[in-house]
Amino acid sequence: MSMPPSVKSEPLPEGTDAVELARALLKIPSVTPDSAEAVDFVAAVLAAAGFRIDRFSSASAGPPIANLYAQIGESGPNLCFAGHVDVVPPGDPALWTHGPFSGACTDGLLFGRGAVDMKGGVAAAIAAALQFWQAGPPARGSISFLVTGDEEGPALDGTVKVVERLKAQGTRIDHCVLGEPTNPGALGDMVKIGRRGSLSGTVTVRGKQGHAAYPELADNPVPRLIRLLNGLIEAPLDHGSDHFPPSNLEIVSVDVGNPVFNVIPAEARAKFNVRFNDRFSLPTMQAEILRRLTAVAAPASFDLAFQPGPSESFVTAPGPFVDLVRGAVETVTGRSPALSTTGGTSDARFIKDLCPVVEFGLVGRTMHGVNEATAVDDLERLTEIYRLILDRYFANPPV
Amino acid sequence: MSMPPSVKSEPLPEGTDAVELARALLKIPSVTPDSAEAVDFVAAVLAAAGFRIDRFSSASAGPPIANLYAQIGESGPNLCFAGHVDVVPPGDPALWTHGPFSGACTDGLLFGRGAVDMKGGVAAAIAAALQFWQAGPPARGSISFLVTGDEEGPALDGTVKVVERLKAQGTRIDHCVLGEPTNPGALGDMVKIGRRGSLSGTVTVRGKQGHAAYPELADNPVPRLIRLLNGLIEAPLDHGSDHFPPSNLEIVSVDVGNPVFNVIPAEARAKFNVRFNDRFSLPTMQAEILRRLTAVAAPASFDLAFQPGPSESFVTAPGPFVDLVRGAVETVTGRSPALSTTGGTSDARFIKDLCPVVEFGLVGRTMHGVNEATAVDDLERLTEIYRLILDRYFANPPV
Ligand SMILES: [Zn+2]
Ligand SMILES: [Zn+2]
Repeated sequence: MSMPPSVKSEPLPEGTDAVELARALLKIPSVTPDSAEAVDFVAAVLAAAGFRIDRFSSASAGPPIANLYAQIGESGPNLCFAGHVDVVPPGDPALWTHGPFSGACTDGLLFGRGAVDMKGGVAAAIAAALQFWQAGPPARGSISFLVTGDEEGPALDGTVKVVERLKAQGTRIDHCVLGEPTNPGALGDMVKIGRRGSLSGTVTVRGKQGHAAYPELADNPVPRLIRLLNGLIEAPLDHGSDHFPPSNLEIVSVDVGNPVFNVIPAEARAKFNVRFNDRFSLPTMQAEILRRLTAVAAPASFDLAFQPGPSESFVTAPGPFVDLVRGAVETVTGRSPALSTTGGTSDARFIKDLCPVVEFGLVGRTMHGVNEATAVDDLERLTEIYRLILDRYFANPPV
Repeated sequence: MSMPPSVKSEPLPEGTDAVELARALLKIPSVTPDSAEAVDFVAAVLAAAGFRIDRFSSASAGPPIANLYAQIGESGPNLCFAGHVDVVPPGDPALWTHGPFSGACTDGLLFGRGAVDMKGGVAAAIAAALQFWQAGPPARGSISFLVTGDEEGPALDGTVKVVERLKAQGTRIDHCVLGEPTNPGALGDMVKIGRRGSLSGTVTVRGKQGHAAYPELADNPVPRLIRLLNGLIEAPLDHGSDHFPPSNLEIVSVDVGNPVFNVIPAEARAKFNVRFNDRFSLPTMQAEILRRLTAVAAPASFDLAFQPGPSESFVTAPGPFVDLVRGAVETVTGRSPALSTTGGTSDARFIKDLCPVVEFGLVGRTMHGVNEATAVDDLERLTEIYRLILDRYFANPPV
């Protein structure tokens, strides 16, 4: 039996192969906030393809964060691909089958921290845009990239700063596709058209320390906190709305830190997080939390403090642009994606101030976990989907 | 104006001056379990006065603990003074006006860790016993001392071991005075004739960790624990009994330890302590706690674990011995002490297995705090009270 001669395919034009781009990005250990090298890599690829580059850092709230806005084309409409190339820490590298920054590709899987969240999505968008543009630019229109290195961190010096800069410069973006991993189980599951708002806070109750045998000389803050928290979770916040699941409050920590059994502590604290839909705004959500607490105890008997950086809910109303994205997903995957507003926040909460934004990317199942990986096939089909979005967008702009 | 010549009073026989004894004890830094030197000091004073000494260590549950049983006289009745010479840690010595182990005596106050809890009480009892015996022993009767160095610690190798030893030897004690600081505000406030039982435990709820934005993929243990704890404290345990205040449950800690707001934790724990009266026994108290928890949630959905070393309640019924102690307090202070069972546990919970035990000592206000101190006048009057108890006990034994 003879082996067939190995066939070497034609090399793709530089920057148009999503798998090669993703592997190169995965080898850069760009844990937030150390993502400058990964942002520079993207800038270099786009610059080589003719994009105009605006690469800048922002350090208003901590270490400098690398950001990038790149555009090719002069006129509108401007379709933007947004994403982040920072990643969460890999945890113990010894737990990984392949090194978290090795870019290992085996058995049809591409491994690495950020493979699905979301260097894979960024690579697919770059490959699709370069393929599209190199096949012949549209008569009218621009493609742009908004890439940040501060999505997994506090997100105070990332996309929010790019959005501010674009507004200040008068740069217009007409529509945006954000390549976060939106699919829970398989490519084609879900397109995200909005996000719930998020609000975190702490409730603190102060009392008076004392011996457990002399409760009359002390003031135990724990039962007072328990009753407040019980009031907070007693009834559902709402039952959902047209585009949203029900608002939900989770008490994520209660902490006293008393090492012994015979001492009544002086203070007790709880942390909560609310994900709320468009039946609430931030002010009405804050008011609802305060109302529930003051229904249990006088306002002076506890401290309520909200965390910085809350977000409002938003939704991109179904219409031509949403239909265009959904249609491209259907054509490539043969599946009809749900239009969802579930899950955590994303940088879409900042971009929605510029233009309608829809999210579609890889399969999120392994994100933030050990052995994060994407199927190579998913990466290639995502590139096809983005390419199809570009084809259809510029053939018949939904503006 | 001329100064009167300084008058030197007659020196007291060695070991009969409570203030000097207390100062000597306070200079020994006998923080539990390092109390051997203080126990040895007491043994030496009693030995010099003719007491037979049984000085032994016990180390069944940790480092060796110094214990002492000493007796003078051969026949009954045997009146025992019990106490401990270990002390709780002084905390930051810089916070003390006088060093916690300096034995400083100024402005009518004797300062030091253990001044009231309870080296002062031990010193008063020794001084009273030696004064009484040296004035002429009774025709019949013995005085004994039961002194331990493990009252403030786990109490597993202290008085409980002395009691076991006395039982094994067939040593009989007829009545016991325990010199813990029983007076809340002033000498003569309170005689303790019993103690509530004490039971501690933990409630643990386990769930499944996850992202706060995906509660449907997680199982938050915190609201489940809050509902359990609410059920535990919702209704009073009882409304007190003839000799006891109401039973009381305090939740003293709730701990999750989640540092972030966007993660649902995997586990939540709470610590509680119950002080219960004679309407409950340990088994019925444990059953009541389990009943309250299972009224909220299925038994398999939480873990309930009781701490080692719980204690039953007990009471020394009012009668001739209680009247004798109360009468001596009244004669010296001019005040009528309450007969109480309030407060924490004490070593009386072990001694009550040997004989009736009544507690009376100094004023507890500064115990376990910074600048613990007793009025010198209180120490001298407590010595008088103990002396009067001895006089009346052996003149007309309540047996
Ligand atoms: Zn992401
Ligand atoms: Zn004590």
